[in-house]
Amino acid sequence: MNNDFLEKDETLDDLQLKGLCVIQKKDAFRFGVDAVLLANFANIKRNTKVMDLCSGTGIIPFILVGKTSASKITGIEIQSDMVDMANRSAQLNNVQEKIEFIHKDLRDLKYLKTMSKVDVVTVNPPYKLKNSGIVNLKNKDAIARHEICCDLEDVIKAAKTVLKDNGKIYMIHRPDRFADIICTMRQYKIEPKFVRMVHPSVNKAPNMVLIEGQNNGGRFLKWGAPIYVHQLDGNYTDEINRIYGKCKKGDDK
Amino acid sequence: MNNDFLEKDETLDDLQLKGLCVIQKKDAFRFGVDAVLLANFANIKRNTKVMDLCSGTGIIPFILVGKTSASKITGIEIQSDMVDMANRSAQLNNVQEKIEFIHKDLRDLKYLKTMSKVDVVTVNPPYKLKNSGIVNLKNKDAIARHEICCDLEDVIKAAKTVLKDNGKIYMIHRPDRFADIICTMRQYKIEPKFVRMVHPSVNKAPNMVLIEGQNNGGRFLKWGAPIYVHQLDGNYTDEINRIYGKCKKGDDK
Repeated sequence: MNNDFLEKDETLDDLQLKGLCVIQKKDAFRFGVDAVLLANFANIKRNTKVMDLCSGTGIIPFILVGKTSASKITGIEIQSDMVDMANRSAQLNNVQEKIEFIHKDLRDLKYLKTMSKVDVVTVNPPYKLKNSGIVNLKNKDAIARHEICCDLEDVIKAAKTVLKDNGKIYMIHRPDRFADIICTMRQYKIEPKFVRMVHPSVNKAPNMVLIEGQNNGGRFLKWGAPIYVHQLDGNYTDEINRIYGKCKKGDDK
Repeated sequence: MNNDFLEKDETLDDLQLKGLCVIQKKDAFRFGVDAVLLANFANIKRNTKVMDLCSGTGIIPFILVGKTSASKITGIEIQSDMVDMANRSAQLNNVQEKIEFIHKDLRDLKYLKTMSKVDVVTVNPPYKLKNSGIVNLKNKDAIARHEICCDLEDVIKAAKTVLKDNGKIYMIHRPDRFADIICTMRQYKIEPKFVRMVHPSVNKAPNMVLIEGQNNGGRFLKWGAPIYVHQLDGNYTDEINRIYGKCKKGDDK
């Protein structure tokens, strides 16, 4: 039956979380550990409204609907075929009441201003600068990975526009952009409040950063313990297993 | 003989580095692992000029003179008795040709502008905000620990004033001030270039941050592997032993 929902070039992937799944393109950008880390980092309280920017296939909203009691999650995505896939995933998962995906450019602040404000923004934005080694600006993977359709400032401006006072933004990004993230957040009066660095393993430099910002928050930046993805033997660490394990534990399909 | 150099309330402490020692007050602020980490983090090329701000007893210059081929190291310190101790240490170590300490307020930019520009600034500044739990503003420890006589912006302004174009600043500070450091550096066009977080042990949040900034540098923030101070059994890690060990190796007294 599920195959009716799928195009030829698509797969249906089990999130191992309460029977949830997500439609992805076989050969295009597919979700990675960063999406899972971000969805676990975000502190979503009961009955809160969430907006996921650069939502792609909707992986963050689908993990959040499985792990939290958010009342409503809205994904914004600029690529129409991604939005189409994400909405089909929502139907498949029977969570259309809680999750919707909107085909919009997050730079359309006029539109964002018409939406009701949210408690939390999540975003796993394109990491790379526009001019860093791109072959084809229309390539879908390039749009997901490079700042072609939006840059860091666009993301922060969009978050600022939709966040309630004291609302939180949760972002995952590359450590080499950390100074840009901090300064751009402050420029828009979103105060960096909590950071966890993600390391491939214990003696490696971090390759991802998880950051929480608070709209109009006071100044104090707390740091959490580092997250190590792999043990020295190459296996996942206990923390990563726990993150995935939590999903499996909840799998009651 | 050395005792002629010492006041009653002072001790002479061996740096375990080429026979160098430093005079410290018995009951006042004494150098810690942060000073040693900073002196090891600073990348000092042969025949370069260094200025150490908030120099205190001169611990950073004395380690640098033992470990690098800097041509000249100038320490700036606001507390006159500290400057007196540091200059006596310089005499004791017979390094007056290479190291001098000046009794100055680093906020005196007019004075700093009269000095010749340097390749490198090192600084282990007061970590704590002025209003964070101070009993006595004249207390010498409070001046070393709290932003009483200078704040982060004063430090960055002083560095900006004395640094050559593309010169480097090396700072150690608390991670909770990291956003302030980054934004203030950028405000004065000193670009954060390299960071290493320092953790008490492997699964603990960082409690110190080492940061390199470059005067008028281009944007790219590189991260190094974390530094762990203690192993889980409480002993120093190999890296910390190596830092101290290097000193011992050089001890040819």
